[in-house]
Amino acid sequence: MDPAAFQVKRVRPADRPSTHQHAGRGQGPSLVYTEDSSRVLVDVSVDGDHTCSFERAGPRANIAFDPKVSSAAILTSGGLCPGLNAVISSVFMSLHHHYGVGRILGIPNGYAGLMPGRSAGIRPLERDQMKDIARTGGSVLGSARIEPDVRAIVDTLQAYSIDMLFCIGGDGTQRGSHAIHEEIAKRGLPIAVVGIPKTIDNDISWVQKTFGFETAASIARDAIAAANTEAECAIGGIGLVRLMGRDSGFIAAAASIAAADVNYCLVPELPFELDGENGLLACLERRLPKRGHAVIVVAEGAGQHLMPKADAQRDASGNKLHQDIGVFLKSRIGAHLKAKGIEHAIKYIDPSYIIRAAAANAADQVFCTTLGHAAVHAAMSGRTDMIVGSWNGQITHVPIPLAVQGRKQIEPTGELWRTLLETTGQGPLIG
Amino acid sequence: MDPAAFQVKRVRPADRPSTHQHAGRGQGPSLVYTEDSSRVLVDVSVDGDHTCSFERAGPRANIAFDPKVSSAAILTSGGLCPGLNAVISSVFMSLHHHYGVGRILGIPNGYAGLMPGRSAGIRPLERDQMKDIARTGGSVLGSARIEPDVRAIVDTLQAYSIDMLFCIGGDGTQRGSHAIHEEIAKRGLPIAVVGIPKTIDNDISWVQKTFGFETAASIARDAIAAANTEAECAIGGIGLVRLMGRDSGFIAAAASIAAADVNYCLVPELPFELDGENGLLACLERRLPKRGHAVIVVAEGAGQHLMPKADAQRDASGNKLHQDIGVFLKSRIGAHLKAKGIEHAIKYIDPSYIIRAAAANAADQVFCTTLGHAAVHAAMSGRTDMIVGSWNGQITHVPIPLAVQGRKQIEPTGELWRTLLETTGQGPLIG
Amino acid sequence: MDPAAFQVKRVRPADRPSTHQHAGRGQGPSLVYTEDSSRVLVDVSVDGDHTCSFERAGPRANIAFDPKVSSAAILTSGGLCPGLNAVISSVFMSLHHHYGVGRILGIPNGYAGLMPGRSAGIRPLERDQMKDIARTGGSVLGSARIEPDVRAIVDTLQAYSIDMLFCIGGDGTQRGSHAIHEEIAKRGLPIAVVGIPKTIDNDISWVQKTFGFETAASIARDAIAAANTEAECAIGGIGLVRLMGRDSGFIAAAASIAAADVNYCLVPELPFELDGENGLLACLERRLPKRGHAVIVVAEGAGQHLMPKADAQRDASGNKLHQDIGVFLKSRIGAHLKAKGIEHAIKYIDPSYIIRAAAANAADQVFCTTLGHAAVHAAMSGRTDMIVGSWNGQITHVPIPLAVQGRKQIEPTGELWRTLLETTGQGPLIG
Amino acid sequence: MDPAAFQVKRVRPADRPSTHQHAGRGQGPSLVYTEDSSRVLVDVSVDGDHTCSFERAGPRANIAFDPKVSSAAILTSGGLCPGLNAVISSVFMSLHHHYGVGRILGIPNGYAGLMPGRSAGIRPLERDQMKDIARTGGSVLGSARIEPDVRAIVDTLQAYSIDMLFCIGGDGTQRGSHAIHEEIAKRGLPIAVVGIPKTIDNDISWVQKTFGFETAASIARDAIAAANTEAECAIGGIGLVRLMGRDSGFIAAAASIAAADVNYCLVPELPFELDGENGLLACLERRLPKRGHAVIVVAEGAGQHLMPKADAQRDASGNKLHQDIGVFLKSRIGAHLKAKGIEHAIKYIDPSYIIRAAAANAADQVFCTTLGHAAVHAAMSGRTDMIVGSWNGQITHVPIPLAVQGRKQIEPTGELWRTLLETTGQGPLIG
Repeated sequence: MDPAAFQVKRVRPADRPSTHQHAGRGQGPSLVYTEDSSRVLVDVSVDGDHTCSFERAGPRANIAFDPKVSSAAILTSGGLCPGLNAVISSVFMSLHHHYGVGRILGIPNGYAGLMPGRSAGIRPLERDQMKDIARTGGSVLGSARIEPDVRAIVDTLQAYSIDMLFCIGGDGTQRGSHAIHEEIAKRGLPIAVVGIPKTIDNDISWVQKTFGFETAASIARDAIAAANTEAECAIGGIGLVRLMGRDSGFIAAAASIAAADVNYCLVPELPFELDGENGLLACLERRLPKRGHAVIVVAEGAGQHLMPKADAQRDASGNKLHQDIGVFLKSRIGAHLKAKGIEHAIKYIDPSYIIRAAAANAADQVFCTTLGHAAVHAAMSGRTDMIVGSWNGQITHVPIPLAVQGRKQIEPTGELWRTLLETTGQGPLIG
Repeated sequence: MDPAAFQVKRVRPADRPSTHQHAGRGQGPSLVYTEDSSRVLVDVSVDGDHTCSFERAGPRANIAFDPKVSSAAILTSGGLCPGLNAVISSVFMSLHHHYGVGRILGIPNGYAGLMPGRSAGIRPLERDQMKDIARTGGSVLGSARIEPDVRAIVDTLQAYSIDMLFCIGGDGTQRGSHAIHEEIAKRGLPIAVVGIPKTIDNDISWVQKTFGFETAASIARDAIAAANTEAECAIGGIGLVRLMGRDSGFIAAAASIAAADVNYCLVPELPFELDGENGLLACLERRLPKRGHAVIVVAEGAGQHLMPKADAQRDASGNKLHQDIGVFLKSRIGAHLKAKGIEHAIKYIDPSYIIRAAAANAADQVFCTTLGHAAVHAAMSGRTDMIVGSWNGQITHVPIPLAVQGRKQIEPTGELWRTLLETTGQGPLIG
Repeated sequence: MDPAAFQVKRVRPADRPSTHQHAGRGQGPSLVYTEDSSRVLVDVSVDGDHTCSFERAGPRANIAFDPKVSSAAILTSGGLCPGLNAVISSVFMSLHHHYGVGRILGIPNGYAGLMPGRSAGIRPLERDQMKDIARTGGSVLGSARIEPDVRAIVDTLQAYSIDMLFCIGGDGTQRGSHAIHEEIAKRGLPIAVVGIPKTIDNDISWVQKTFGFETAASIARDAIAAANTEAECAIGGIGLVRLMGRDSGFIAAAASIAAADVNYCLVPELPFELDGENGLLACLERRLPKRGHAVIVVAEGAGQHLMPKADAQRDASGNKLHQDIGVFLKSRIGAHLKAKGIEHAIKYIDPSYIIRAAAANAADQVFCTTLGHAAVHAAMSGRTDMIVGSWNGQITHVPIPLAVQGRKQIEPTGELWRTLLETTGQGPLIG
Repeated sequence: MDPAAFQVKRVRPADRPSTHQHAGRGQGPSLVYTEDSSRVLVDVSVDGDHTCSFERAGPRANIAFDPKVSSAAILTSGGLCPGLNAVISSVFMSLHHHYGVGRILGIPNGYAGLMPGRSAGIRPLERDQMKDIARTGGSVLGSARIEPDVRAIVDTLQAYSIDMLFCIGGDGTQRGSHAIHEEIAKRGLPIAVVGIPKTIDNDISWVQKTFGFETAASIARDAIAAANTEAECAIGGIGLVRLMGRDSGFIAAAASIAAADVNYCLVPELPFELDGENGLLACLERRLPKRGHAVIVVAEGAGQHLMPKADAQRDASGNKLHQDIGVFLKSRIGAHLKAKGIEHAIKYIDPSYIIRAAAANAADQVFCTTLGHAAVHAAMSGRTDMIVGSWNGQITHVPIPLAVQGRKQIEPTGELWRTLLETTGQGPLIG
């Protein structure tokens, strides 16, 4: 990189002063402009101790485990996500081919497989199977949601002489990994616990992109396309698609941008109202007679305040269970339009498991492969209590406590949401 | 971002000293290790004048053109690439909806449409059509390779009162844009020329990822999967796939990693030999009897030194025309194995236009939309002689002279090639 | 065809007497054997008046309308189905190119577009649009379910001087076509009404296969594959997929055979029980502990007798509305397994509109094209009150009263269901 | 079936005499009209000895082999075709589950695996693997083209105590099966040889549709779509796609109809000329300036008389090897247009193995399953020297000598070619 080149070659202004005021459509004060002085660093890798930085992933010259006598184990936990098998295969291949680790075990059904009475299912993984699964959906190891009993689990790790444990799972899983690490540390055991973060919602903190997300957004887009086709072909057709996104609307936003024909995208981060002058119902009431149809995408965690309170339930991983905003919206929209005498037909699609069970697309496959290798390099180098992440295009090491300290959400003034707003043209839907 | 969190939460080592020496399989001295001190910056946006940085893209508070009285024009030039229509649509939508620019023209067949005698094809773009094309392959504007006559072109821009010209094309096209800008500057005209870089090979300098690349790699992966199936089902089956990649093997490498069953990936950046102990022919000779089949991926620009010299020909954009390395390899491998009496069957696939003509996948669609918006924001702010790029996950402004000063290539010691080597297990194929 | 060849070349028995008794697995007396004397005619086209035969479709030497001065109109009615646009395009192209009919109108939203106050939406179809739609999902004409007012409709046909009306729709639509024909006949008008039967359930009488069915089964198969992946990855995983099929389970059966991993396929034609020794619940109770997972496919009209009676509701086309057997099964299975203390996880998928809105696959596209041409040939020859059908591989003319006199259903002793039973291995689920 | 219903309900003519003469566009005397008296039989199954009929497939009440002590073997031979694994899986499942045959062997690489020195590769097939392959491309048994040594092969069948041999392959393979049967008959052995015909060209005599054909046409359609996109985006763009079809153009015709944007479809059955007033070159010369682009599909066996004679070569299965008509056309068209000074760009696509290696689509999967079951029923009943076929929508038994006595070709006056001509609008291209 030649700094001189950058000094000489700056972006040039046309010979015209900037005198007009920018007025984005319908977005009023919410549009945050980019300052002309805002710049993007060319080199984001630094050496040494920079406060706000991640350790960079990659193979280290010195490794902490002797491959010939070491054992590794892999598990997948939580709901399915495109790319699980690709990650499993990649971790296996790097251990097997790159380092020559001879004993690589598969743990069935997540932490359950390490619990007493279940460990009979632990079995060595075979190269031939690992090669064939790389491009399939699901997880050959099976999965489950379960509260890990860390002491029993560390007992099993010891009983099976496992030196490295690779945990592919979401923030519940990684919290479990951290607890397992604490128990390992308490016992003074030299066992590395390294996670590969799995969240179809793309909502892990301090990780910009997780595997499977692009594939998920892609299949979600196809569901939206179906909804749009249905909406356009009916009188007053409303295509309503419910997508994943408990706390974060990344899939909903990305799929809506990619679909290019969504009118309203509703996510947990951005509150919206049904009633009122700018509420969704009034917007639909105005739009339908004029444009004939509408397409709405809603993330499962959006608009929770609109629904009658239910007891706060949580699933086995401790995630809050939401009421079904899709079914709720379908019912409220239908009732409102009927009351207003507006001819309409609501087409509701909930693609759910069709998204989760898909195989990774090519870009995710490359990403899964890279993450799997990075996780192996990290564990072999003796790192523990960490996950491999992705930041500014680099693969990073992220301490688990940092990764699980909250949920990553769409930045309302950031580029993704700005692109979404420009694509849908939707207003604030409030007030 | 809270620096304290990062200080407290560092990646922890397992309680085990790193005493083993790392020995990657078959890659000898070429494996470059990551230093433990290597870190990745969390925030890559900076304010003010940092030498090695790009201007950040985004809407500016002040704009240089009055939308109500301004005109814009869009053209696509060079070979097809997934996402062209998505970019066209996105540029149109941002101009039309976000800024309210009323007159947006489509230039047919690249620079040709701005040349004398061709400009009759220039026509206003219509919203309905722009909506429908967003998810289709090809370019509604058509394309062509042609040497631009910059004076005639600027005459046409003036004749049609075009204030902003958006050029979607490769480095040949962007060199043309720069020349057009120079002529505009010479005449002192307030016309902005902004490019969106299009290269299916992903080889534009100072732009980490270009649109269409992921889609291309994805379809290339499917061709490789077909080759692998054919190879596995024949006695001594060899699947040979030729992919795009004149000077850079990004598609070949990414598709090979994604396919997970490639044995040899040959790219322009890494020389290889056919003959000799470690040459490709000897490798195949040893592999076939043992494993029964092999899959080879070759980028069109790889191994040029192996072929008999032809006169250096160039296409209309000035790109060097290569001899067909795929056909050459097929012939040489067949002859060698026949001479050695090794039963074999070579299955050759050249997916060519099937890749170029594809529609963008969802991730590319989001990317195209974002780039199109950024290009419009840049032009509206009065910038010119620049392209919109992607760097460390941010959208950037890149001066054209910087972007066209060379070709981006795979870094032989970088993460992509390291991941490729770990995936294929191929040796150096030299010496 | 040379009869002698057939006489000489009969299928030869191996030199072994047939002395063993055939015992199909678990299907006991329900398996109907094929008699050795059963044969299939080579030529199914006959000339002249054979009692049980259909008129064969195709272009006639003499036509009833002078293309130069004739007008045609096309409408689509009822729910979406893959291939609607392909049929529209094919009808248009045959009228326009083959016969040179100059005035071809599109009727918006089915019969609604011919009703008073709606006919403003009638517009001439344009060749360019018709070319582009051939491979898209949905219907460019829009659709609707509505009770046709035949007198008002025939008034509109006269007002617009329509000579040929092409109605693409299900049996409700065709009943409407018949009523329109009766009104036309009463008025002594020379207007031809020809239908192309559209039923995603493939349940029109005297038509062996309708367009869109293969595409629908194909997408349904993908939903089943997702359910299977989810089921295999969970402890006690049950994949439950609800598919279309109000009175006939063709999609459920075909998709289940194609998926190759379905354990229970439930259709309206074959009654089944939940309770009892051989009921579905007991089967699952026995299977889960042994095999770990199960996949169930249920057509929407299956098992209606199991659910609490609701008032018989009908949709606008007069089709009986069913309660949701999928949701009902999910609830009953979950309750049963919970009561029995069997660990399980039910993954429910309802792909619904994702299937209806799809574009036709290639085979359906060929079929749609052929049907569209046949419909035009029939109308041009002066035929009316008929639909074009498919029988023994030939395109036929079927009188509407014959086609709407009942619903085609799966033959329990026929080849399709036998193939399904051999594929799933399911028992009778009764008693 | 109630004949009375048919008598009462005949297709009614509109009240308009047929007085106009039908004049199809540009097809002059070649259009064969359908006689009004032409009818299609409703029931094509007959009992007893009808001269021109096939034996109907299906399970027989009496079987010739005792499943408990019988052995079966499966092989695939010749080039790949979508659905091979589905057929293998279906044959296995029917033998294993339906009849309970305990010993089912897989023969590697076609007849080669039964030859001396190769039979070591014969191995029992396992249920788990058979379940997983059902939806994959290729053949788990591998394939090969080889001249079978029938005596050695029957020796192997005896050595391995094989009672039923299932041969999945083309007419070369079935000729081999017949020869093996003759040797078996000579030795008086009770071994059944049953074939499932495999021809991606769909050209087996007396079988209306073979498995894999629909899938092949579907992928071919996608290649044509890419060619069309390329052609439309270039100045004078010509998309040229070469497809399989040695002696029969079924794939070319079906894919061209499905693509809906082909202008010229060239097949072996219909001669065409390059030169002359109506030759292809003159047609292109006239079309390009007017329409701007053209799409041509050519089957590999078309236009052989146009190319310089090469020595007649044959492949290992005895199939005539053709020169490459695609490359030849590309060169001739380019030279002609250049000589005429017509701006053009030829985009040539040869999808080849991408088609052959694909997995079966859902409809083919159902078809493969049905054929596999039928083949097992036939062999278990003691039939031999036959293949299972498809005729008028029924599965049939076809004696091998009948099936291999010629190649099925497109009927120039039949419905398929008529539909093709109406879709492309192409003229006779002769004279």
